[in-house]
Amino acid sequence: VMAFLNKFWGFLQRAWKIAVNEPNKLMHCLKVGLALSLVSLFYYMRPLYEGVGGNAMWAVMTVVVVSEYTVGATLSKSVNRAIGTFLAGALGVGVHWVATQSGEKLEPVILQAAVFLLAAAATFSRFIPSIKARFDYGAMIFILTFSLVSVSGYRVEKLFKMAHDRLSTIAIGTSICILISMLVCPVWAGTELHNLIKNNMEKLSDSLDGCVAEYFENDVKADNTKNEASNKILQAYKCTLNSKATEESLANFARWEPAHGGFNFGHPWQEYLKVGASVRSCAYCIEALNGSSIYSDAKVPDFLKKHFSKFCIRLSTSCSAVLKELSIAISTMTKSSKIDIMVEEMRNAVEELENALKSLSKQQIASTETKTGDSVNDIGEGNGSPAVVTLAEIVPLVTLTSLLIEIAARTEKTAEAVTTGRESRIQS
Amino acid sequence: VMAFLNKFWGFLQRAWKIAVNEPNKLMHCLKVGLALSLVSLFYYMRPLYEGVGGNAMWAVMTVVVVSEYTVGATLSKSVNRAIGTFLAGALGVGVHWVATQSGEKLEPVILQAAVFLLAAAATFSRFIPSIKARFDYGAMIFILTFSLVSVSGYRVEKLFKMAHDRLSTIAIGTSICILISMLVCPVWAGTELHNLIKNNMEKLSDSLDGCVAEYFENDVKADNTKNEASNKILQAYKCTLNSKATEESLANFARWEPAHGGFNFGHPWQEYLKVGASVRSCAYCIEALNGSSIYSDAKVPDFLKKHFSKFCIRLSTSCSAVLKELSIAISTMTKSSKIDIMVEEMRNAVEELENALKSLSKQQIASTETKTGDSVNDIGEGNGSPAVVTLAEIVPLVTLTSLLIEIAARTEKTAEAVTTGRESRIQS
Repeated sequence: VMAFLNKFWGFLQRAWKIAVNEPNKLMHCLKVGLALSLVSLFYYMRPLYEGVGGNAMWAVMTVVVVSEYTVGATLSKSVNRAIGTFLAGALGVGVHWVATQSGEKLEPVILQAAVFLLAAAATFSRFIPSIKARFDYGAMIFILTFSLVSVSGYRVEKLFKMAHDRLSTIAIGTSICILISMLVCPVWAGTELHNLIKNNMEKLSDSLDGCVAEYFENDVKADNTKNEASNKILQAYKCTLNSKATEESLANFARWEPAHGGFNFGHPWQEYLKVGASVRSCAYCIEALNGSSIYSDAKVPDFLKKHFSKFCIRLSTSCSAVLKELSIAISTMTKSSKIDIMVEEMRNAVEELENALKSLSKQQIASTETKTGDSVNDIGEGNGSPAVVTLAEIVPLVTLTSLLIEIAARTEKTAEAVTTGRESRIQS
Repeated sequence: VMAFLNKFWGFLQRAWKIAVNEPNKLMHCLKVGLALSLVSLFYYMRPLYEGVGGNAMWAVMTVVVVSEYTVGATLSKSVNRAIGTFLAGALGVGVHWVATQSGEKLEPVILQAAVFLLAAAATFSRFIPSIKARFDYGAMIFILTFSLVSVSGYRVEKLFKMAHDRLSTIAIGTSICILISMLVCPVWAGTELHNLIKNNMEKLSDSLDGCVAEYFENDVKADNTKNEASNKILQAYKCTLNSKATEESLANFARWEPAHGGFNFGHPWQEYLKVGASVRSCAYCIEALNGSSIYSDAKVPDFLKKHFSKFCIRLSTSCSAVLKELSIAISTMTKSSKIDIMVEEMRNAVEELENALKSLSKQQIASTETKTGDSVNDIGEGNGSPAVVTLAEIVPLVTLTSLLIEIAARTEKTAEAVTTGRESRIQS
């Protein structure tokens, strides 16, 4: 029993954490409660009740089903439900008319066949990606309403009355939901998408900095408390890796939303997906870098590490600065005046790192030559020991630099995606 | 009009492709149609109709909502719907009794407050990850039923009768759906998950082979037709990158399923997620490798490339062989007798590649010395030109080898995950 209580307590604590950290979610719960209370007023107020009859139940059902966290999702479900019901209702009445014309024996056969065929067709349409993304719920409602109308049409005489009632109750339910979701602390899918992409960029930039810094400062590892905080930063990029599905569903919902904040209706949400994809491709590189063997065997000679640290850190700093600047550019939706200069600087950093690699090989060769010749110590870092460096020793370092250069290239592509996205916004 | 027709034609073609390639999906549509036809028989057969009354509509609704592609999803929704309805019904009747006891004035107030509070609480529970994964639908049904029961309880006198009817119609609807989904061409979520992981491994192994082969044979690039096919193989790993969400939902559904095929109830589906995650971490490395700068600037001297190609290809071959063997081990659910030897071989290949790197540096140094000394051509590949190799030239090669070694390490982890998974299956 204690174990169960403990578990339950832990569960409550986690729930409390969610409530405190994300007040919007708590607000959403109150909004659902409010919408349900409003719609149940229809039951308590006699005159309204007489109007829509016992079908008021459909209004309650609509509110429960249509209430979603973001405005876009609510709108999308409402539109889907309304269109699905209307189409299926119209078709149902049509099929019912045909069936009644063809005699009492054929009537159930025709109705059954129509239900079977249309249900199968509508179910199939839900497998087609382009329909699934936008009209999945509508197709389900279509099947539901069509079956209900054509099946109950056999019994209920007042078919038109029923169809009309269903439509009007759905209209009542959806309008209550839409109004509440838009007027009381609205959560816009577009804004969520916008912030998600922005935050992913910031996290990526922090992780990149932390990753490179950790490599070059792995003496400080003794300090455990600091390590935990920095570990959190290092792992921050991980949420970017699997955010594709979230981004896509947010973009799908966002296109239903009217103008809000700085976004117009028809804001190019698809461009956010492109930016998100290129941010993700940077994250893959960091994932390959992070936790990889380059940390484990630190065989790299110290003087080389020191020599390269300034180039690598310069590159990673300029790279993460570009990412930060891009995230600011996205959040303010303006063209950053500095971005071109910063990208240029990143390119310079790449070039310098490449030059450093080249000069290292010269130095290395020189150092081997100094052993045959006798001019010791006229080159190199002034640390007096330009020893012979074997290739195996510098593999981790070379890998790091090469991946950094790759990350820089992908960051540049991200910058391009952001720029194109802005332009297509201005054009639209 | 022509443009629209063209678009529509393309749409039909795509739909046809889905139908041909995935007959299971087509079958699913027919199953939904069949289930709906069966349930609508309740309307046509008088005696049955008298039994459950006008509430037979709930059975139709249940069938439409609960019919899902996999057996696990259908079961999960059915159980959720039944439990949610039962709990909410019981609570609704209870609250209704309390409300009627407290006088006519207080009654609507109590009912409203209960609807508001419970709806908000249930909505909040849907945000908690552990509940969302398994009982999301149940929480929605709970809100729906509770609101309907407590709101309509104000009017409908026969509350118990209504609750009983709803439960029995839901039982009819769900049992029709469950029977059809399990008996007619069942699609098991467990089997789907199993195959998904297996296929992902195979694709990864193909991509790895293709990737390394392409690097070392980039002279053949002229052959365009071959390139397209090989490009498809190269990109095959990409579906692994974003399969996390699919894997998780399949694993969630699979745990509802009874024993089927070689799987018992309580098969350790969570282990598949671990295997899937480690396969994905391999894929991240390939993603960092693929399309990266190592292909673009092929500055690597030919003799070095030749020298390394055999080591790299050996490593990638043994790595992809391990992945293939693991995918076979998963699909047959047996312990492969060869896997330990193969992993050992992969380790040897890694070591050899590392040795090659070390010996290369000696050779390189030697080759610079031969310029100062005079013993030309007594080392090296016998191709007569052991030229001075600068570090910048071999960066792509070093990166490739280092990433290959990392991929090998991650493959080993995958092998471990597969082994642990099998053991936990035997224990359970």
